Amino acid sequence: MGLLLTVNGAFILISALVSYLYKDGVALEMLFAGIVGSSAGGLVMLLTKEHRKEISKREGYVIVTFGWIFMSLVGTLPYIFTGAIPSFTNAFFETMSGYTTTGASILNDIESIPKGVLFWRSTTHWIGGMGIIVLAIAILPLLGIGGMQLFSAEAPGPGGDKLHPRITDTAKRLWLIYVGYTVAETILLKIAGMDFFDAINHSLSTISTGGFSTKNTSMAYWNDQPIIQYIVMVFMFLAGTNFVLSYFAFKGKFSKIIKDDEFKTYSLLIIGFAIVVALLIYFQADLSNSSIFHPLVWGPFESAIRHGLFQVLAIITTTGFVSADYTLWTPFLTIFFLGLMFLGGSAGSTAGGIKVMRHLIMIKNGILEFRRTLHPNAILPVRYNDKAIPQPIVFNILGFFILYMLSFIIGTLVFSWLGLDFKTALGGAASTLGNVGPAIGDLGPVNNYSSLPDSAKWWSAFLMLIGRLELFTVLILLTPFFWRNR
Amino acid sequence: MGLLLTVNGAFILISALVSYLYKDGVALEMLFAGIVGSSAGGLVMLLTKEHRKEISKREGYVIVTFGWIFMSLVGTLPYIFTGAIPSFTNAFFETMSGYTTTGASILNDIESIPKGVLFWRSTTHWIGGMGIIVLAIAILPLLGIGGMQLFSAEAPGPGGDKLHPRITDTAKRLWLIYVGYTVAETILLKIAGMDFFDAINHSLSTISTGGFSTKNTSMAYWNDQPIIQYIVMVFMFLAGTNFVLSYFAFKGKFSKIIKDDEFKTYSLLIIGFAIVVALLIYFQADLSNSSIFHPLVWGPFESAIRHGLFQVLAIITTTGFVSADYTLWTPFLTIFFLGLMFLGGSAGSTAGGIKVMRHLIMIKNGILEFRRTLHPNAILPVRYNDKAIPQPIVFNILGFFILYMLSFIIGTLVFSWLGLDFKTALGGAASTLGNVGPAIGDLGPVNNYSSLPDSAKWWSAFLMLIGRLELFTVLILLTPFFWRNR
Repeated sequence: MGLLLTVNGAFILISALVSYLYKDGVALEMLFAGIVGSSAGGLVMLLTKEHRKEISKREGYVIVTFGWIFMSLVGTLPYIFTGAIPSFTNAFFETMSGYTTTGASILNDIESIPKGVLFWRSTTHWIGGMGIIVLAIAILPLLGIGGMQLFSAEAPGPGGDKLHPRITDTAKRLWLIYVGYTVAETILLKIAGMDFFDAINHSLSTISTGGFSTKNTSMAYWNDQPIIQYIVMVFMFLAGTNFVLSYFAFKGKFSKIIKDDEFKTYSLLIIGFAIVVALLIYFQADLSNSSIFHPLVWGPFESAIRHGLFQVLAIITTTGFVSADYTLWTPFLTIFFLGLMFLGGSAGSTAGGIKVMRHLIMIKNGILEFRRTLHPNAILPVRYNDKAIPQPIVFNILGFFILYMLSFIIGTLVFSWLGLDFKTALGGAASTLGNVGPAIGDLGPVNNYSSLPDSAKWWSAFLMLIGRLELFTVLILLTPFFWRNR
Repeated sequence: MGLLLTVNGAFILISALVSYLYKDGVALEMLFAGIVGSSAGGLVMLLTKEHRKEISKREGYVIVTFGWIFMSLVGTLPYIFTGAIPSFTNAFFETMSGYTTTGASILNDIESIPKGVLFWRSTTHWIGGMGIIVLAIAILPLLGIGGMQLFSAEAPGPGGDKLHPRITDTAKRLWLIYVGYTVAETILLKIAGMDFFDAINHSLSTISTGGFSTKNTSMAYWNDQPIIQYIVMVFMFLAGTNFVLSYFAFKGKFSKIIKDDEFKTYSLLIIGFAIVVALLIYFQADLSNSSIFHPLVWGPFESAIRHGLFQVLAIITTTGFVSADYTLWTPFLTIFFLGLMFLGGSAGSTAGGIKVMRHLIMIKNGILEFRRTLHPNAILPVRYNDKAIPQPIVFNILGFFILYMLSFIIGTLVFSWLGLDFKTALGGAASTLGNVGPAIGDLGPVNNYSSLPDSAKWWSAFLMLIGRLELFTVLILLTPFFWRNR
């Protein structure tokens, strides 16, 4: 954790360098924030110098949850020191939204923020995205969280009580892919005509499925440059896949990718939904209305396909970039996109939400449940990637889903209690819990979270955190027996 | 099924008698409907004279589902012959809403309908309520539906493929209780000052947790007679409990009731929610607004408690009577009541919805899932009523919940597709699936379903049917393997 904080501080220092290079006038404040941030990390390292290499499962939950919260506290420093976000509540919201790769913002005029701070803002996404891949592939499976065991790169058996993951190897490989994608997207966006600063920031946001933009209108700013939007789409798609598959791809094992049940479902869902949405926009929406998505550079049909696919990708991968306001399309599509927020990307990606793998196993199990009803004595295990899934893991996943829905319902009720209207409360809970960003109602794609009361901002931050850490990791800390049975 | 239809026809004849006694001018048409209805039953009996006593599980699903649909077709006759509801779509909707004990109506001016027809309308609730208790206690457990095995009076083991329930004994006992409650409520309501016709109709609606009223303003008509509303509340509460418990009560076995986990939870939830709602109305709603609930006979505090409790009971028991429009109270309460529609009454009652028993087992299992995460090798079964629940049954219940949520999401999307607005689509799906009746938006407590397009009425009827028959019973008929693997 000390190491994490020190690295984090180093990233603030890089942002300070960006400030200096772009002469945005806050380089000194950023430098100061970086020094404080790194020192906090150093301090933690000193205090925990006598560390063991092995940590217990119980300690695992505590470290992951509190580590995330502590990082978010330190991450507010650049906002506060530079005065870009003077309110602590707002700064904490923005940082949590960054690290959880949600991309919900309280900034009303993004373009007026100093470039160094904007760079830091995108960097929080990137750090959070990297963090979650390492967690999802190396640590959460060992903690036994909601079926995450299924796709672990290390494939550990349903484990003992001590954990000592071979985290370094995995992390290194994934880090290379993660950096590679980011660099590739930056170069491609630059070639396609994007400003270098915007290109790097949007790449940091895309690969982490975050969604922070450097423009007030998000990706709609480039509606007249379809190539740029298509490049972002390709990388949103990649960022929503299991990063272990990317590793296979680079090793040339394409058969493993094509045979992957989750990858197949994920790809088919995106294509299917994009076609449905594109047809609905094309035939039902009023394309002459300039608030739909203008200019129609390559004609209305291409625009309908592009924006349909873009928004489906943005919501399913939980990136939350905005190329057009889907709440203006048709009333059906508003409710449709609200539903999409529950889908989520692939397990082992940077995407949030319930995840395609879990849906797939739940649907397979649901179909089997019908068969089991007919033949109560038959033993019918769920099959996934040609393997029979042990029943405790299916149980784990069903439990996760129920906990997710329960969190959504409580999330909505609390938002409503705090004064949000019907649509906003429902959409806000779905979006923050799924780490999406834009929602519906007052939190629609062209609005932001600044209008929420402070209490609702804290509640959003909590929902983002539990959603990001797959619920169990955080919520188990709230159970009395976690602390009792030592 | 032939017997059922004949009995059904006999009830139409009773309604014809009511028509004759009240001289509402449609006695002849009702008589005709009764004769046609009974003949249909006789015909079926003749055709299936060579019946076996044993039926297979597979046949069970078919008979229950198609029996219900066939009954609903025959049940439209009184509406159509008398011209009270000329449109077939509307008549089918009203009949399905009756038999499924939903209580959603398409009638704009209930008080203008002939009394014989109104009596028939309430009778459909009563027949449906009786039907569902027999199904739930004697048949669905044998069909292996979503955990219904747990509270079966006969307590069969996880069964073989043939079924031959000792249905007659159970049915007789429950029938007595059901009739007894209905008579008792009618007498009490009459004594409290209700007109005899209204008393019997509201009793038929209450005990079946249906919700059809003889007044345009539903139970709000008696807002100046609190005693009447309290009587209805008592019977709503009873109708939402497991009827097997009532049987124990009459045998003097009160300890069995007090120890019942579901009964305890059901009672505590109602009391807890009623207090929350009452306090919220009292302190937050504008009681001087005459559309809230007037007159305040016994002062505003009693009114807040009465209407809070009344609406909590009406929604949890899925009766759907209306004493006041909860969508006018506070925005929070609108979303709160939408959530309540997912609760449902007790298993083995006439109430619809997910049911308290299933929620209880899901929550218990959810808490255990946290423990299982910490101790992956421990075997931790869910305990309910002091017994360890076999894992396949817990699986069954989790599967039911997921199927319920899936049906709700698809239900909402289809409603939205058919042109309903956001709130109405969400509320309509929750309410029809849970057999509640009133919803939110355009289907709020003071509105009805007449404004829906015909397509949405058919979709509502489908949702009411699958909700009433615990999803699996109907949906299993839509799976290809049900028809294939004979």
